[in-house]
Amino acid sequence: MGAGFCPAHEAYEDEMKVQAKEVDILLVEDDAEDAALTLRALKQRNVGDRVYHVIDGDEALEFIFATNLYGEWEPANAPKVILLDLKLRKVSGLEVLRELKSQDRTKTIPVVVLTSSREEIQNIESYRLGVNSYVVKPVDSKKFAQAIGDVGYYWLMVNQPPYR
Amino acid sequence: MGAGFCPAHEAYEDEMKVQAKEVDILLVEDDAEDAALTLRALKQRNVGDRVYHVIDGDEALEFIFATNLYGEWEPANAPKVILLDLKLRKVSGLEVLRELKSQDRTKTIPVVVLTSSREEIQNIESYRLGVNSYVVKPVDSKKFAQAIGDVGYYWLMVNQPPYR
Repeated sequence: MGAGFCPAHEAYEDEMKVQAKEVDILLVEDDAEDAALTLRALKQRNVGDRVYHVIDGDEALEFIFATNLYGEWEPANAPKVILLDLKLRKVSGLEVLRELKSQDRTKTIPVVVLTSSREEIQNIESYRLGVNSYVVKPVDSKKFAQAIGDVGYYWLMVNQPPYR
Repeated sequence: MGAGFCPAHEAYEDEMKVQAKEVDILLVEDDAEDAALTLRALKQRNVGDRVYHVIDGDEALEFIFATNLYGEWEPANAPKVILLDLKLRKVSGLEVLRELKSQDRTKTIPVVVLTSSREEIQNIESYRLGVNSYVVKPVDSKKFAQAIGDVGYYWLMVNQPPYR
């Protein structure tokens, strides 16, 4: 049954159970620890109230392409930003990115890749596919929280998304 | 002769005279007041040391496409981000964006549109053309400085550009 909150983050579930159409951030992350740190960091910067978390690429595409589960597609329902981990089970992050950026109705949604890899080839390929921003997750947990907070703040408070 | 610093900003000229290959930010802005505020805001956030300022779209394309004036093109010479005003003389900002994002060797360079317009049509068209981020310049000068500082900080300190 499609997208949902990762079981590891039940503490967040009530607060974060939002309607698809109210989502500001779609977080696509299958690593439970990274997801928990990310959700917490967004909360700390006051940009974590309307986050929807899916744990694989299939779920991300299902959410974005608004299949039956989520009702009819409307541009205004798109998240203001998608935070996309590259290393996902099933459909890879780069595949999700390629899919999003190759279709007219989704290519305008800002996508930020979050990755622990410094591999140049992934970085360049992400930009070629049209990623909006590419952020390497710091290993140190304090720096990680700072970087994620900066990302959330920028894309919700500084950037002007399309259609909103 | 092509790109250069806007005469209105002579005070910054010495500090900011950098080689093309050392540029972090290419600022494309023909409004003297906005340019001065932008350069000052970047300085204040410590991300203004390696900014190159051009005042129209022709100069921006000349700089980016590394014509004779700037020598041979190398990806590592690309700025980490281009801050692009939409309302430019001669070639419009949207034309510059279209040109940059339609060519393989320049499409990976992050471009942030800075505009004073809230027109939805320009916003959506910018995303369709592949803009990385779209920022509406606040009218209030303090908020303007804050927003520009946030933009500079994000694209130089948080985002990982290609090829660097």
